[in-house]
Amino acid sequence: MVRILGIDPGLRFTGWGIIDAHDNFFSYVASGVMATNSKDSVPKRLCVLALGLEKLIGIYQPSEAAVEETYVNQNGAATLKLGYARGVAMLIPAQKNIMVYEYGAKTVKQAVVGTGAATKKQVSIMIQRLLPGVKIPKADAADALALSICHAHHRISQIHVNKGTIMA
Amino acid sequence: MVRILGIDPGLRFTGWGIIDAHDNFFSYVASGVMATNSKDSVPKRLCVLALGLEKLIGIYQPSEAAVEETYVNQNGAATLKLGYARGVAMLIPAQKNIMVYEYGAKTVKQAVVGTGAATKKQVSIMIQRLLPGVKIPKADAADALALSICHAHHRISQIHVNKGTIMA
Repeated sequence: MVRILGIDPGLRFTGWGIIDAHDNFFSYVASGVMATNSKDSVPKRLCVLALGLEKLIGIYQPSEAAVEETYVNQNGAATLKLGYARGVAMLIPAQKNIMVYEYGAKTVKQAVVGTGAATKKQVSIMIQRLLPGVKIPKADAADALALSICHAHHRISQIHVNKGTIMA
Repeated sequence: MVRILGIDPGLRFTGWGIIDAHDNFFSYVASGVMATNSKDSVPKRLCVLALGLEKLIGIYQPSEAAVEETYVNQNGAATLKLGYARGVAMLIPAQKNIMVYEYGAKTVKQAVVGTGAATKKQVSIMIQRLLPGVKIPKADAADALALSICHAHHRISQIHVNKGTIMA
């Protein structure tokens, strides 16, 4: 069994979702959205985000983390802000010796729905099927749970690849 | 007296420079450049940067920090990487309750040389005049020292403004 923390980072809202993966069986642990106050300074908001992630890790003790590869758009200032949040989202688990993996949005949709062109609604429906007992989460939390599921799929293939390498 | 930590953040190289400011008199404390290994994963590199900043703060105990406002360019992926480093450079001092201030490159040049169009060489020469005893630093460290000096100038005007408000 491995406990996976998925993080969909943003300076305003950061979605998070935790699952336990036993081979191809997943169970829902927890999910939510952390918000920072846009009236606070950016350093203060990064502290709030960092503290939130530290608390999550302390409570749920995940052993691996998956972070969404941020969408890079034409707006440099927005990309930079996304970079701050994503930097913190990668730093905090890494500081606790949790391996951090990155997945693009298309890869996540492919893993959860079967197509990289899936809608947000399709992702949400599949999450409820794959994780019995999950409450219908907010969009950012749903994305974070999808990330966890995506990593659960990929880590199995990675382990197989590694086993193959060791045996070769 | 106030001890100021200037940080010129980057994922590959982060310049840092520390000065003591007594009103309009500055003295050099220390400066340098932290590097991360481009072969390491980004989360690992952010950990190295965070640990380096934590050590600096532990050793020199600055009470205020100044971070360079990152240049936002057309390359979204490069901007994002700069964002990671800058996010960590703002987070670590803020976590230690050190106030973090931001200055753009032009403001820094204006404060140190007297013109926002100053060359790197002019900045370097002025730093050696303003900070007797400073060793000619690497470019990133010179930029970080210039940031510290810039903040030393600006904090005095800020204090004057605050005093005026209190007396009004």
